[in-house]
Amino acid sequence: MVAKRGVVWLRCINDIKEKLKSVLSEERFDHSLRVADQSVILARRFGADARKAETAGVLHDCARDLSFGEALNEANNFGIILDNVTKNSPGIIHAVIGEALARFEYNINDHDILDAIRYHTTGRKGMSMLEKIVFIADYTEPSRDFQGAAGARDILEQSLDRAVLYAMENTIAYLLEKRMLIHLDTIDARNHYLAH
Amino acid sequence: MVAKRGVVWLRCINDIKEKLKSVLSEERFDHSLRVADQSVILARRFGADARKAETAGVLHDCARDLSFGEALNEANNFGIILDNVTKNSPGIIHAVIGEALARFEYNINDHDILDAIRYHTTGRKGMSMLEKIVFIADYTEPSRDFQGAAGARDILEQSLDRAVLYAMENTIAYLLEKRMLIHLDTIDARNHYLAH
Repeated sequence: MVAKRGVVWLRCINDIKEKLKSVLSEERFDHSLRVADQSVILARRFGADARKAETAGVLHDCARDLSFGEALNEANNFGIILDNVTKNSPGIIHAVIGEALARFEYNINDHDILDAIRYHTTGRKGMSMLEKIVFIADYTEPSRDFQGAAGARDILEQSLDRAVLYAMENTIAYLLEKRMLIHLDTIDARNHYLAH
Repeated sequence: MVAKRGVVWLRCINDIKEKLKSVLSEERFDHSLRVADQSVILARRFGADARKAETAGVLHDCARDLSFGEALNEANNFGIILDNVTKNSPGIIHAVIGEALARFEYNINDHDILDAIRYHTTGRKGMSMLEKIVFIADYTEPSRDFQGAAGARDILEQSLDRAVLYAMENTIAYLLEKRMLIHLDTIDARNHYLAH
């Protein structure tokens, strides 16, 4: 029975990857595979479900290649009410739409996976283990070379929470410097992990 | 009638100053007078009520010399439910308690004045003119010499909103660097003034 479930899951994840390959740019698809791989590694290290990690990791950017206008349209189609920051931030809206696409186009109904997709960019207070894993896998996958990725990798050797906090603080500083909107979920999460 | 009201008001503001002098350190009292003066100057420049500005300016730090424990006790006495950031931030709690003291110990019942005291540290989205004035007067009064005060004074020559935004962004960067909690009201306000 376990073996049969394994076969079914393998077919599912392969179907997901095939579909993703057809809608994402090559670069984005490759990034998604790396985040999936990194998520599996971290799930094994920190004791999360590796299959959920792979699924959330590979799907996290499933809406990232929509234009901003398309993403806004999808929000409207799905009846999603966007907050003021999300509806003005291409870098955030894709995570919200990604959750909806995962649910309705990739038939994911596992809330752990959906939440990990939804919060992979902003984070939030009280993230689940899987949310933290996909968040930090996206930040640290091997091809990431922005300032902060190497530091986050080092800290990740010691602590998942501290790596998440470090990535959030770097992201806030970056958004502040670039004069981009900062999502309240990120500040709320940063305050939370700073105090705990 | 107008002259009589003027006399009454003068007696009120002098009573407030006398009481403040007896409860604040000399340094804090002098700072409060400078914020009041600066608030009056800005009120005249930007078209706000100068008497309200003086009252809010002089009272803004009326709870600043309470110890953190005393401030928490006062919150309890006044039945104020503090959010997680405020209840862990001496630099913020005094503004919340200050509003309550202004109301109940200094008999202020003008909501413009009370809000200007309440939000003089964090700011918030949709601040009134008076709130902005006291916020930036506190940041730029002549003795302020921290990094950012001079820049804020320059910008203030051009725009109240841009000076408030500049001060908020400097404060966020400072709190981030010092690893101190950041209030969500400040981020919400910064996002708002950045986009408008």
